[in-house]
Amino acid sequence: MASEKMIQYGSKRSVIRELFEYGNQRAREVGRENVFDYSLGNPAVPAPAAVQKTAIELLSSDDLMAVHGYTSAQGDAATRQAVADHLNATYGTAFTADNFYMTCGAAASLTITLKALTESPEDEVLINAPFFPEYLLFVENGGAKPVVVPAHEPDFQVNFEALAERINVHTRAVIINSPNNPSGVVYSEETIEKLADLLRTKSKEIGHSIFLISDEPYREIVFDGVTVPYVTKYYDNTIVCYSYSKSLSLPGERIGWILVPDAVTESRTVYAAVCGAGRALGFVCAPSLFQKVIAKCAGETSDLSFYRTNRDLIYNGLKKIGYECAEPSGAFYLFIRSLEPDANAFSEHAKRYNLLLVPSDDFGCTGYVRAAYCVKTDMIERSMTAFRKLYDDYRS
Amino acid sequence: MASEKMIQYGSKRSVIRELFEYGNQRAREVGRENVFDYSLGNPAVPAPAAVQKTAIELLSSDDLMAVHGYTSAQGDAATRQAVADHLNATYGTAFTADNFYMTCGAAASLTITLKALTESPEDEVLINAPFFPEYLLFVENGGAKPVVVPAHEPDFQVNFEALAERINVHTRAVIINSPNNPSGVVYSEETIEKLADLLRTKSKEIGHSIFLISDEPYREIVFDGVTVPYVTKYYDNTIVCYSYSKSLSLPGERIGWILVPDAVTESRTVYAAVCGAGRALGFVCAPSLFQKVIAKCAGETSDLSFYRTNRDLIYNGLKKIGYECAEPSGAFYLFIRSLEPDANAFSEHAKRYNLLLVPSDDFGCTGYVRAAYCVKTDMIERSMTAFRKLYDDYRS
Repeated sequence: MASEKMIQYGSKRSVIRELFEYGNQRAREVGRENVFDYSLGNPAVPAPAAVQKTAIELLSSDDLMAVHGYTSAQGDAATRQAVADHLNATYGTAFTADNFYMTCGAAASLTITLKALTESPEDEVLINAPFFPEYLLFVENGGAKPVVVPAHEPDFQVNFEALAERINVHTRAVIINSPNNPSGVVYSEETIEKLADLLRTKSKEIGHSIFLISDEPYREIVFDGVTVPYVTKYYDNTIVCYSYSKSLSLPGERIGWILVPDAVTESRTVYAAVCGAGRALGFVCAPSLFQKVIAKCAGETSDLSFYRTNRDLIYNGLKKIGYECAEPSGAFYLFIRSLEPDANAFSEHAKRYNLLLVPSDDFGCTGYVRAAYCVKTDMIERSMTAFRKLYDDYRS
Repeated sequence: MASEKMIQYGSKRSVIRELFEYGNQRAREVGRENVFDYSLGNPAVPAPAAVQKTAIELLSSDDLMAVHGYTSAQGDAATRQAVADHLNATYGTAFTADNFYMTCGAAASLTITLKALTESPEDEVLINAPFFPEYLLFVENGGAKPVVVPAHEPDFQVNFEALAERINVHTRAVIINSPNNPSGVVYSEETIEKLADLLRTKSKEIGHSIFLISDEPYREIVFDGVTVPYVTKYYDNTIVCYSYSKSLSLPGERIGWILVPDAVTESRTVYAAVCGAGRALGFVCAPSLFQKVIAKCAGETSDLSFYRTNRDLIYNGLKKIGYECAEPSGAFYLFIRSLEPDANAFSEHAKRYNLLLVPSDDFGCTGYVRAAYCVKTDMIERSMTAFRKLYDDYRS
């Protein structure tokens, strides 16, 4: 009756979602306060007051038709200019409104970009592990072939050797995500420079430019004075995919953008392809109220210091017990080394203590679990005994 | 550098958009009040007060994380239940929350549905002319083949003979759109019954069910006591695509839904395919604030009587002059017979009087122009002299 592939996509729950549902069931059995649910990567602080105020002002306007009306397909011009101004002021770039295409959030930014840049089932898109599992599906569904680049352990920077080996004449793009979901690692400037060098060399070798797709929903969530290099300054053929889900705590409002800098080869043609892909996928005109909110709040963020408090608590707590973790410099994830080779078995074992940790296999690497610490701070405190017991089961 | 097809989609402006831009240019030359722009189909009345009030209340909530948080992929359960309740009360149907998938608007409803129902480049989707031009692109991009069924003139009901001829073993679905853009015609109950009979017969003949995709963004905009039959009651394998763009005047907010009734063959599997397609296209979780607005305002409409006033003015005015038009029972479009065989030449000629009318060729039929009368009422009054002059050029 329907597409087999779509039935399959729609029938299989993700491991993350399975764990989350299990957590809800356990909460009914043993009480919410006794379940330590680290499964979901959902913002844990509210949107900034400026966002709330601006949205209410817009809705109180006499001209609701302007507030709720269609913007141009690529987004409201004032919104795109505000985004450009904010980035230019923050990163010393020189973007204009014409470099941006407003989207319905991070997933849309990626599916549109992939649809714009690939066209043949032979086209390959390289994905650096560990990665957000939906990347595989987005690339496949865009009509191209996802190629996984294994993780570089234990620092989770880029695995350059493996990446270089996988680049060939079919390579169209490489996706990076820093600060990273699920590892919490931030790519260093050295990593970005080396990546840019490699992609320049390889582009010459294969006779066409390789795009670098930088997926950056966690850009603003970094700790310890770490800076996230602005990737377009290191590599010309960079397309940035952004969403306000995390920085403004608006995950449900589906608002983000795609940036196609002038430095991209045939930039205006690539931008036209982005517009065409948005149209073909049914994405023209991102939600208008929140486009207009962004026009006034492009530089705002939620209270992101909350995540640092949580990061310190869970990271220091686990280190003290004896766990090994990837360097958690950004996003709101801790990537904990599994205490047995099979992370699925480890995650299963952790459930005995009502600790819900996502095994790393679906993120494209084995032997870790992800803890999303965008949770109430006291839950972290209360979970330490459970983490201790879990550790003791393996070490005693 | 990028996908040729997407570059092409993104580079060519639609005829409608071309005319609109021409209108803006003429307004600068001769004054806005002297341009009679009937090009764009944009709501001309504001959102209802209840929508505004509900949105402000939600934004004033203490729990902004709930307001702006992710809903489940298929949409907030309370929202889907409210939509079901409203339809059941209005049309005597028996839907539940589980029959609905909330979407980012009409285009998303269609691209998701088409992706869910088709899977091979040999799959065919029949489109009844005249039609919204993006249908072609949505079907093509979903990976199937659009097949146009010529218009049934002069009443613009279904061309059953042409439709029957085009159904074969590759046929997966038929798209209808009533009240219709661009003709303003509403399919009669007789038409829907005959269509249902034909699809049942043909489904048996070809050995699989043919889906009827009913695209209904104009459902509530009808005049003269005309009723729009609720299509699911006539044909089991109906999927309804809806958007609040017109009924609530929220075109920019991208909020709508897909309805997969229980009566559909293997209904839960088809629903799973819709969920899978939403995921693959990057559409999970429709904009959350407006999902929650719909939960409280599913039965509201904007002041749609405005369109009837306009319809009466333009239709009666043009009839008096001598123009022939399709029966304008719904939506906010008048389909006027061109005064020369080539509608493009006629549209071009009309520009001499600053009358902007969209030629029908891109809607899949020749010899008409579309006037979108969702405009200020006094513009219609002022445009009558221009319509008269245009008529005289051909009749004198």
